[in-house]
Amino acid sequence: MSNEQPVFDPKNMPFRRLGNSGLRVPVFSLGGWLTLGGTVVGDPVKEIIKIAWENGINMFDTAEVYAQGKSELEMGRVIRELNLPRHELVITTKLFWGQGKSPNAGGLSRKHIIEGTQASLKRMGLDYVDVIFAHRPDVTVPMEEIVRAFNYVIEKGWAFYWATSEWSAQQLEEAHHIASKLNLIAPIAEQCQHHMFHRERPEKEYLPLYSKYGMGTTTWSSLASGLLTGKYNNGIPENSRFAQHSDFFKNTVAELQKPEGQEKIKKVRELTKLAEELGTSTAALALAWVARNPNTSTVILGATSPEQVVENLKAIEVLPKLTAEVLERIEGILQNKPEAPNLFGRPALDTFGRPAY
Amino acid sequence: MSNEQPVFDPKNMPFRRLGNSGLRVPVFSLGGWLTLGGTVVGDPVKEIIKIAWENGINMFDTAEVYAQGKSELEMGRVIRELNLPRHELVITTKLFWGQGKSPNAGGLSRKHIIEGTQASLKRMGLDYVDVIFAHRPDVTVPMEEIVRAFNYVIEKGWAFYWATSEWSAQQLEEAHHIASKLNLIAPIAEQCQHHMFHRERPEKEYLPLYSKYGMGTTTWSSLASGLLTGKYNNGIPENSRFAQHSDFFKNTVAELQKPEGQEKIKKVRELTKLAEELGTSTAALALAWVARNPNTSTVILGATSPEQVVENLKAIEVLPKLTAEVLERIEGILQNKPEAPNLFGRPALDTFGRPAY
Amino acid sequence: MSNEQPVFDPKNMPFRRLGNSGLRVPVFSLGGWLTLGGTVVGDPVKEIIKIAWENGINMFDTAEVYAQGKSELEMGRVIRELNLPRHELVITTKLFWGQGKSPNAGGLSRKHIIEGTQASLKRMGLDYVDVIFAHRPDVTVPMEEIVRAFNYVIEKGWAFYWATSEWSAQQLEEAHHIASKLNLIAPIAEQCQHHMFHRERPEKEYLPLYSKYGMGTTTWSSLASGLLTGKYNNGIPENSRFAQHSDFFKNTVAELQKPEGQEKIKKVRELTKLAEELGTSTAALALAWVARNPNTSTVILGATSPEQVVENLKAIEVLPKLTAEVLERIEGILQNKPEAPNLFGRPALDTFGRPAY
Amino acid sequence: MSNEQPVFDPKNMPFRRLGNSGLRVPVFSLGGWLTLGGTVVGDPVKEIIKIAWENGINMFDTAEVYAQGKSELEMGRVIRELNLPRHELVITTKLFWGQGKSPNAGGLSRKHIIEGTQASLKRMGLDYVDVIFAHRPDVTVPMEEIVRAFNYVIEKGWAFYWATSEWSAQQLEEAHHIASKLNLIAPIAEQCQHHMFHRERPEKEYLPLYSKYGMGTTTWSSLASGLLTGKYNNGIPENSRFAQHSDFFKNTVAELQKPEGQEKIKKVRELTKLAEELGTSTAALALAWVARNPNTSTVILGATSPEQVVENLKAIEVLPKLTAEVLERIEGILQNKPEAPNLFGRPALDTFGRPAY
Repeated sequence: MSNEQPVFDPKNMPFRRLGNSGLRVPVFSLGGWLTLGGTVVGDPVKEIIKIAWENGINMFDTAEVYAQGKSELEMGRVIRELNLPRHELVITTKLFWGQGKSPNAGGLSRKHIIEGTQASLKRMGLDYVDVIFAHRPDVTVPMEEIVRAFNYVIEKGWAFYWATSEWSAQQLEEAHHIASKLNLIAPIAEQCQHHMFHRERPEKEYLPLYSKYGMGTTTWSSLASGLLTGKYNNGIPENSRFAQHSDFFKNTVAELQKPEGQEKIKKVRELTKLAEELGTSTAALALAWVARNPNTSTVILGATSPEQVVENLKAIEVLPKLTAEVLERIEGILQNKPEAPNLFGRPALDTFGRPAY
Repeated sequence: MSNEQPVFDPKNMPFRRLGNSGLRVPVFSLGGWLTLGGTVVGDPVKEIIKIAWENGINMFDTAEVYAQGKSELEMGRVIRELNLPRHELVITTKLFWGQGKSPNAGGLSRKHIIEGTQASLKRMGLDYVDVIFAHRPDVTVPMEEIVRAFNYVIEKGWAFYWATSEWSAQQLEEAHHIASKLNLIAPIAEQCQHHMFHRERPEKEYLPLYSKYGMGTTTWSSLASGLLTGKYNNGIPENSRFAQHSDFFKNTVAELQKPEGQEKIKKVRELTKLAEELGTSTAALALAWVARNPNTSTVILGATSPEQVVENLKAIEVLPKLTAEVLERIEGILQNKPEAPNLFGRPALDTFGRPAY
Repeated sequence: MSNEQPVFDPKNMPFRRLGNSGLRVPVFSLGGWLTLGGTVVGDPVKEIIKIAWENGINMFDTAEVYAQGKSELEMGRVIRELNLPRHELVITTKLFWGQGKSPNAGGLSRKHIIEGTQASLKRMGLDYVDVIFAHRPDVTVPMEEIVRAFNYVIEKGWAFYWATSEWSAQQLEEAHHIASKLNLIAPIAEQCQHHMFHRERPEKEYLPLYSKYGMGTTTWSSLASGLLTGKYNNGIPENSRFAQHSDFFKNTVAELQKPEGQEKIKKVRELTKLAEELGTSTAALALAWVARNPNTSTVILGATSPEQVVENLKAIEVLPKLTAEVLERIEGILQNKPEAPNLFGRPALDTFGRPAY
Repeated sequence: MSNEQPVFDPKNMPFRRLGNSGLRVPVFSLGGWLTLGGTVVGDPVKEIIKIAWENGINMFDTAEVYAQGKSELEMGRVIRELNLPRHELVITTKLFWGQGKSPNAGGLSRKHIIEGTQASLKRMGLDYVDVIFAHRPDVTVPMEEIVRAFNYVIEKGWAFYWATSEWSAQQLEEAHHIASKLNLIAPIAEQCQHHMFHRERPEKEYLPLYSKYGMGTTTWSSLASGLLTGKYNNGIPENSRFAQHSDFFKNTVAELQKPEGQEKIKKVRELTKLAEELGTSTAALALAWVARNPNTSTVILGATSPEQVVENLKAIEVLPKLTAEVLERIEGILQNKPEAPNLFGRPALDTFGRPAY
């Protein structure tokens, strides 16, 4: 391995600010969930990360819980071996479940936030991550303790920013409340599930937070665990993720058999037709659709092979094709657009009027 | 009319603090919605308020929008005519919809909160109310403006406390955020819909607010617009509220015809059986069930006649009958208990452990 | 005059929030500068305000200095005589120059802000105005004194909001600084000169304030003292404002004779052609152009006759005609678009990227 | 090289506080822009820094962007080799443009401020600099993030103070706002362009900041890229900076050909006459004129040879010659004195009256 560091080239990858922060993230980033360090280990991890880097992805997301720490270990190893320059990377990890059965092994206590961050950095072989996420809310810990602990992690230099994952609007509001009151650093983003069949939270519940705090999102499962690739359009193939992780996806699979599930598959078939019409794949259309949302900062991609990374990045070319008319057609297929906030009959503002959020 | 003021006697009415405030409210209070000043005017209003007062109800709730201001006019007139002592009363009103077409005639702008409060007090002939409610959230006004304006109303002496109605947990959290940050007075209670078929918001969404801020509720529609009296157990009678206000309740009625509606009526029939078993009415059981919730401060009753007030107050006697076993049976009938907050696998706390919220 | 109050009807007037406040203002409002109480007195003032009200204008702007207080006197008198309902009106006035030669007769000292507000209210015969403006910045008074004094005026109930006029971005930033630090009420809007030949301040200098504080503008001189009506396209007519107020407009007139002035008139001639093409007047085009700016809350119109009000309100119909293409053509004529903020080579964000302001 | 450290002797160099800080800086300091590490490398760098040190200059300014990091490398190397005592030096560097194409390689994100400071220190071989400058404003990053990050750098011990370069008054005001609100360290100085033909910003726009926050300036280009040496009085000589860096100065050169440029050269010729009359050079006069401004903390000199340092330091002797009368004559030549702040007719204060800013 040469000492020469490869120089990052964003290629045609669009970059965005991560929420209202100064950090730039690629519109598509790479995540380790279920794959890197889990079903994929060793050289293939390196090939996947290398191809991502070469295609403009410089953000890599993992979590202490992914593959019981092996995701952090593998991703850290590969980044070192590829000699990628640290300041050109955006590396993120997430804390919550920890490891082991001890009552203090996880959650968002000050103890676990500090011990967990240190353990994650050690596994990755890094001095710091760019963003540390609270992987879930923890209603058994006072919000003040949580915000103080993440602030501590940042002041220690172990992370530049902190963020949340799957918190409710009320919990995020409280985090901002505490941060503002105590002059502490507030979270900048939310790692939320967002795909064509999961819209209420990212598209409605979070609305006041986008406008007030400039919150950004780093979305996960934007292909609905594969459903939006179209590969289940004609049943569940044997080598699919649903078949392989049948335990994990048991409920998901079961629900696909129900009338609501069948309804979804019908919609995916229509999306597949639309994708063909646009000269792209169902997956690329679904990914671009999430990326196109103005509050999305980055769509986290999963991948089990380098080819899949390249395949999914075709979504970049779909972005400009998502015209108002095409978006309208997608809504026509989905029929699940979240309601606008209730104004309770307040006089509507004109086309240039700006609501408070 | 004698100059002698009638002396309030709480009788067997239980009193509670209104949220975490020092104000005591009767567990059952009287509201003017749709009735007082609307379908009921003149002497009957006086008879209803008189019987309520004589039965331990000293809290009367109205709103600027009820009967376009006539509810405030009528209730104010009657209280004066009955010569009820102001300091023994708890009088509340609510602002939001205002009157007229002007874009500034309603909402929660500083302008409408101040002008609207003054107009309400003038209609009621009062110097102050005990609690002024924001009748709905107004997402087109910055929360700081709203909290500052209600604080102003209190500092002016026009109200002792302020509260909200039908705000989301996120909105309430923000109101507390602003109040705390600016050292202003925070809202003390929420006037929310709460009945056996409407539980998610009061029993789940608001959970963090009860424990953190001691929020109380003043519930409305606790009989589900009459559905929980059992009077629709065998169809919609001609003289019922649903028939009379068919426009207003159009949707409600329509929904009763649907399978979900029929399912509800089936449950009410079972509740009726349980009520008979407990020696009370379906309505009294349903009211007591809401009143028994530890976060309920007061259940607001509607009434079109003095008899109805007396009838509904039988719920007081039902309160001690709502044992753990009976509550369990009610859950068995309703099958709609909101899920507990997701702990995401965090080790359960012991039986005395209090979650952070 | 009947006791019956006329009911406000917004007609086709679009309404907007005044900056980030809850107050709604009509996109076109009426101001008293140079006319009402000045060159126009008595019944004509009433006719002008009446026609404005009947055409959806419920906001009236004046200042203590306009016609040495006579503008406030006249406008107050007329509003009373027309019996217009106070809560459906938005009345604004402005303090700075005061009256008389005493060193304390004007400026933004606590003394003049409080004494001046009281004097204005007395002249207008009102208990309060909706918005009180600092008519200019006063660099001889500490900002803390200014912000505290306007906060006092609001807490006294003499105004619902305060705002500024012709302040620099630095001064506005400082006002927000002080308000935020001392938990006082911040200004919500800027009354700034904004027309096709005066763009730097409203379109560039204020940019960070629009996004950070939601500042709105109430624009004055949007017809460039008449230049943008096209009436000087062929010289200065005898009965024009420039001729009548030759002292006041001496400089303006002199500048029109210079090469730069002649250049402007040439551009107005081109705008006149464009207006004809759009089936409207040059004035209506110029007014709509300012109104169309997303940061404009209201364009303040001057008027010397009822006909002029009606004439200028034709701008409402022009608003939807200002398509991207038409705006492009206007820029092509004006050639004075302010430069975008300097990013100093920072990587441009993609089309969905949001800069910090 | 001996272990003996040379002892600093200020000679006749006047020292000033750097703004309202406790740090003393020489009125003339040495900068690396375009020269040290760029057109000048190796031994000449050492000779220049040595002669500066021996003539009372103990402050050296560089930036991460100067010669793509080589300026920091060279200046750091020389200071070590000359064995100059760290505590007798004032070393400053500036962050903004970073290096490389990565979207996070520059700007004022927390990431780049922290990573960039560490990289600069590494290049210079230092544990800390005295002052770290934000080399430009970054409107794509929230001010809170910027102020927090510089505060972090100081708390880490990597710098004693932070400052800005070419920020607008509004941006500086906001930085002080945030620092004051969050109890963080505020910037102490501005590295701004200031010379006889560039006066608006340092002499007018920044006025409120000098008086309120005691801001100082470290001026750059005080010879107007050489124009004020008089060497272009008779055209552009072949070996001049304008000729050598023709790309960089293309616009500057082009502008000198225009009427405005010719006007400037005419003025420089008059300044040359005045300089001769005062027995000094045009350059020394121009430098002394900036140094004499009461808000200037230090004038940063560029140099391509040791002789040039000595030559420019003749400005020290000019300082006492800049009497009120001479300054008046300079204004007579320049004819570009910025207007005083508009008082809008407020009664003038007496000769000892201090305006609020």
